[in-house]
Amino acid sequence: MNSRIQQLRELMDKENLDAVLISSLSNITYLSSFSGFTTEDRDAYLFITKKNQYIFTHPIYNEVAQKDFSDFTLVEYRRNNPFNQAVKGIIEKEKITSVGFEAFDLTVNDYNVLTQKVNKKLFQPVNIINKLRVIKSSEEIQKIKDACKLGDKTFSYILNKLRINVTEKELATEIEFFIKRNNADISFEPVVAFGPNASQPHHIPDETKLKKNCFVLFDFGVKLNNYCSDMTRTIFFGKPTKEQEKLYYAVLNAQKASVDYLKNKLSLKQSVHAPTIDQVGRNYLTACGYSPFNHSSHGIGLNVHESPHLYPSSTDYMKSGMVFSIEPGTYSAEEYGIRIEDIYAIEDSKLVQLTKAPKKFTEISL
Amino acid sequence: MNSRIQQLRELMDKENLDAVLISSLSNITYLSSFSGFTTEDRDAYLFITKKNQYIFTHPIYNEVAQKDFSDFTLVEYRRNNPFNQAVKGIIEKEKITSVGFEAFDLTVNDYNVLTQKVNKKLFQPVNIINKLRVIKSSEEIQKIKDACKLGDKTFSYILNKLRINVTEKELATEIEFFIKRNNADISFEPVVAFGPNASQPHHIPDETKLKKNCFVLFDFGVKLNNYCSDMTRTIFFGKPTKEQEKLYYAVLNAQKASVDYLKNKLSLKQSVHAPTIDQVGRNYLTACGYSPFNHSSHGIGLNVHESPHLYPSSTDYMKSGMVFSIEPGTYSAEEYGIRIEDIYAIEDSKLVQLTKAPKKFTEISL
Repeated sequence: MNSRIQQLRELMDKENLDAVLISSLSNITYLSSFSGFTTEDRDAYLFITKKNQYIFTHPIYNEVAQKDFSDFTLVEYRRNNPFNQAVKGIIEKEKITSVGFEAFDLTVNDYNVLTQKVNKKLFQPVNIINKLRVIKSSEEIQKIKDACKLGDKTFSYILNKLRINVTEKELATEIEFFIKRNNADISFEPVVAFGPNASQPHHIPDETKLKKNCFVLFDFGVKLNNYCSDMTRTIFFGKPTKEQEKLYYAVLNAQKASVDYLKNKLSLKQSVHAPTIDQVGRNYLTACGYSPFNHSSHGIGLNVHESPHLYPSSTDYMKSGMVFSIEPGTYSAEEYGIRIEDIYAIEDSKLVQLTKAPKKFTEISL
Repeated sequence: MNSRIQQLRELMDKENLDAVLISSLSNITYLSSFSGFTTEDRDAYLFITKKNQYIFTHPIYNEVAQKDFSDFTLVEYRRNNPFNQAVKGIIEKEKITSVGFEAFDLTVNDYNVLTQKVNKKLFQPVNIINKLRVIKSSEEIQKIKDACKLGDKTFSYILNKLRINVTEKELATEIEFFIKRNNADISFEPVVAFGPNASQPHHIPDETKLKKNCFVLFDFGVKLNNYCSDMTRTIFFGKPTKEQEKLYYAVLNAQKASVDYLKNKLSLKQSVHAPTIDQVGRNYLTACGYSPFNHSSHGIGLNVHESPHLYPSSTDYMKSGMVFSIEPGTYSAEEYGIRIEDIYAIEDSKLVQLTKAPKKFTEISL
């Protein structure tokens, strides 16, 4: 933990920042390993200066602060005694002239409260911790591997639960309970979509009953030791037509095209602009006569969506230590949705696949 | 649904607003009944003008938008084509001169993106929908009653699961699964705390095993049809001492003192400043020689914490249609934590208790 704060301080030095105010929950977790603050309310801030680190939190977290933030100085923070007074005091005491803050997370209200007491000119938006998080250590990659492994187990478990008339919601609940019985959490609400329901990439599982001869799409993730997995598999319940089989393999080959492209670039030590990975898959699907997906692959770690960004406007380049999904799909409104998603890491310039559930077209016989 | 947008327009008129930009998930749900957007990413905005209503959302939600936002005009919103251009277009077309935005929710980044295209002076922070939400309709109160009823059932279910060596985590998982098997969701992560663990009001259930002769605190809530419940019960596993029984009844009587105070004020048609409700309970505990709680009771509805605010600095006054908790507690570090929480509504100037699980000191015999 302290080594991360040390790394952060080195970056602060490079970027001429005397201090950083951390408000986002995942960055608080990154710097402390503590993940118990809620998303409902603003429970805590970290304030890292060149020499000291502070946690501002509500007195109901006093014991947590003493246990999980033992090397932080605790500053009590209440609704009627907001943290801006404390920030002002530290800024004056430590002669701080520049403070980074997380503009992607801090609300306009919080910012206004802060700048009531402290000159606006001191503050600048930063995404500095992102620069550390985007490159994972081998310990972090191992944690993502562990989460992916439980994801694979979950997939083989849920395949055994398919039967005529089971609902999407029932299967989604089974996925969630299986993960939680294994002492992990879900990294997002599981998606289970039968047939045409899968044409919405973010379909919410409903009371639709499983009937024979349709695609079934599963998209779910595990959160284990704070790190996320994410995977999508599309299988067929019943006997597919030739055209359905062709559709499936078009998506699988689109994924293979993206993976081969990336592997090849890495082996040639050529730089890879992140959005080109999905573009290779989209081009493949278009060439096959299918509509390309309008969603994007994404980095993963403490958050299920994080850097590197692979969406079209991203300026990221792929590097060793990055962990991310590759997830092509093809959709036709009111007809079908097929998507295949795996998690990959670049370790020592080599592409490693972390999710390992089988991808050969799976037909579940009735 | 349309009636809520109508009410919002009446308020906009009173406050001289030509438009309101809605970003918070619960307000999007309030105006549409749709609750499927994620907290991970910013999936959607609503933009309500005097005559029109718009939804800005990513193309992956096109089908959702057509189904659940059928009376909204859909504007596609992508990372590389942000919504500020669309907002600018509507502002010019409809000759809008003042726009309310949710400063408590909108991030500094989103605000900066927005005001790149549109003059900052047009925007003003508002919490306008809060003024509607704080007064619940009888349909909304009914939904909260339904959630509370499932909470009561959950409590009687979990009491039967207490046994020597069961862990806090196992019981918390049982609570969650019971609620989910009943087609509802949890409104927050359940708290289960044995003995001294309860001295932290937000204790995270861990591997602590249940031993005989200790307090057990349960704090959990249900989310059903988008509306939340919340309740806390503290029971005793084994045989309490006289002092332990005295402690319990001090907290129960503190709650009774708050309730009686509020009932009396309502029957006399006197106004009630919200923070005085907890203060009566705190004073009671102090008079008994126990330390008063440093957390606060809270309003509840689509969010588990919402208006009216009962914390010390709140300026709210109690009114018919408000729904809220009353939850005194007393804590002693490394010794114990006792809290009792129920949900109440003011209906036609009368206080009605919505959670109904028994509060007589419960001793679970071994």
